[in-house]
Amino acid sequence: MTDSAAPFADIRRLIADMPGPDADAVAMVRARDATLTKPPGALGRLETLVEWLAAWQGKGRPSLDRPLVCVFAGSHGVVARSVSAFPAEVNRQMLDNFAAGGGAINQLCAAYGLGFRVFDLAVDLPTGDICEGPALDERGCVATMAFGMEAVAAGTDGLAIGEMGIGNTTVAAAIYAALYGGDPAHWVGRGTGVDEGGLARKAEAVRLALQTHAGHLDDPLQVLARLGGREIAAMAGAILAARLQRVPVVLDGYVATAAAAVLHALDSSALDHCLAGHLSAEGAHAEVLERLGLTPLLSLGMRLGEASGAALAMGLLKGALACHRDMATFEQAGVSGKAAG
Amino acid sequence: MTDSAAPFADIRRLIADMPGPDADAVAMVRARDATLTKPPGALGRLETLVEWLAAWQGKGRPSLDRPLVCVFAGSHGVVARSVSAFPAEVNRQMLDNFAAGGGAINQLCAAYGLGFRVFDLAVDLPTGDICEGPALDERGCVATMAFGMEAVAAGTDGLAIGEMGIGNTTVAAAIYAALYGGDPAHWVGRGTGVDEGGLARKAEAVRLALQTHAGHLDDPLQVLARLGGREIAAMAGAILAARLQRVPVVLDGYVATAAAAVLHALDSSALDHCLAGHLSAEGAHAEVLERLGLTPLLSLGMRLGEASGAALAMGLLKGALACHRDMATFEQAGVSGKAAG
Repeated sequence: MTDSAAPFADIRRLIADMPGPDADAVAMVRARDATLTKPPGALGRLETLVEWLAAWQGKGRPSLDRPLVCVFAGSHGVVARSVSAFPAEVNRQMLDNFAAGGGAINQLCAAYGLGFRVFDLAVDLPTGDICEGPALDERGCVATMAFGMEAVAAGTDGLAIGEMGIGNTTVAAAIYAALYGGDPAHWVGRGTGVDEGGLARKAEAVRLALQTHAGHLDDPLQVLARLGGREIAAMAGAILAARLQRVPVVLDGYVATAAAAVLHALDSSALDHCLAGHLSAEGAHAEVLERLGLTPLLSLGMRLGEASGAALAMGLLKGALACHRDMATFEQAGVSGKAAG
Repeated sequence: MTDSAAPFADIRRLIADMPGPDADAVAMVRARDATLTKPPGALGRLETLVEWLAAWQGKGRPSLDRPLVCVFAGSHGVVARSVSAFPAEVNRQMLDNFAAGGGAINQLCAAYGLGFRVFDLAVDLPTGDICEGPALDERGCVATMAFGMEAVAAGTDGLAIGEMGIGNTTVAAAIYAALYGGDPAHWVGRGTGVDEGGLARKAEAVRLALQTHAGHLDDPLQVLARLGGREIAAMAGAILAARLQRVPVVLDGYVATAAAAVLHALDSSALDHCLAGHLSAEGAHAEVLERLGLTPLLSLGMRLGEASGAALAMGLLKGALACHRDMATFEQAGVSGKAAG
């Protein structure tokens, strides 16, 4: 084993040890579903969502008693290249806003009864400019993934994952370009709302970054370390930890999906415990989700990040589970369940 | 005025008197939205939903403090033609199930904090078989619409409208076929889950009904009376009453949309206060919504009725409004709102 591989060895071992779905739990859900006072299949995707919860919780009676929304915040050296509509100091200001309860995600967590935690991944210390060198060295990347793995609080039975980090749609675009190839311009979008010039600067930054790191991007973990950032690495760690702890994950939008894409590139089954909460307004998100085999639950033209789309999806999941858990059976209700033809 | 027109004259007068959107309220929402701690437009459709609430409530600070889900239940003579997978006695059994809190809609109302009312439109007395004669006479239709108009309880600030009625996807298909033309088979779907034979019987029933009522279907209110049923007429009344009382409406699926389509055929602006809660699994729903100019909020393959899709959509609306109402402004949070480019 080379020195370069060593820091990532533990991550690869955890991925090799990922548990699979619990078929017995799914069978229990299906058996109960067939007794509920509704035509078979009439709740559509609400029914398959409950099966998915059961499969990954490993529980025939799945729960969402302690859903948790985690927002990971990072800071990016590439922001110096004017790739965002907002300045880097907004990272700290938004952390304060979350702490004071003023963000969109605070309101959504309150509306749907979701726990909420924010992780400050050294937002006052930007990572390296990916156009000039690695965002993180390998040990820094692994340490940040490990930090993210700790985010999954004991007792959590559903995890929504999102981020905040000025400049991170550029970083996400660089990750996708490295993983999937193609024109850098294909992977960049308006983010928080850049103009034509900003869009061109984003594409140019991705192009430069790919050039700078050429020859080192075959390993998805190298892609994560060199082109990512702390919030991306932490989200990758959290998604992986959730799998190991049997906690289903709801992914937020374009940037959160980049962390997921790194894991998927390492093992195509690594996201089977993940639901795409929504389709982002960032143009390339649809293609990424298709590559990952994920069908978004919502499509509302959102592009805020901070787990907002994932939180809305978690609200829907709560409704789906409430139906499965609390509806009367045909027998309980004395309803004629026999189909007449 | 002929005798035949008289019973419908009051309905036409109410439609002529419908209020329009409140532009000042929308302007107030937009002005506040611009101050909130997020990039402009980043909450996508959540933002336009709040504008829509404001436009139709006529309030610059819209509310969803008393959202109400109304389920209208009816019984259909056409069920004798074996057009449903369930027998007609399920209507009464499901009313009992709703009263006992055992239906899917009960769980969704509890999950999202929505008020819930069920209206029994004489489910023990089926309407006439539409293949042989009118479902309702004109006076009965107007009286049922008037009953539905009473459903909008004082203080309600958002109304989700749905139904329950064995056989009513056949009735809805007949209404669409009468309003929009085309092959009867185009408008029928699996409903609660009929087999190929059931599907053929549904198409044949629609064909027969159109033949029976040929020459009397130019007036949408005649379509409603002759081919509809009590829950459809009551929903049409409720949708109209909500407009007059400035209560935004969330429509459920294929059958609820048929009631809406009758109003739309009378006045193409009659549904401007309505949101399509979801896209039903019933195949022709997408085409109907496009004809009505409505974009569904959710697409989850649901086909239960009983306002289940509308209730989920109401849950999303509550999240949208919570963001608008409770997020901090840039000034309150000390966040740099100035876009850098």
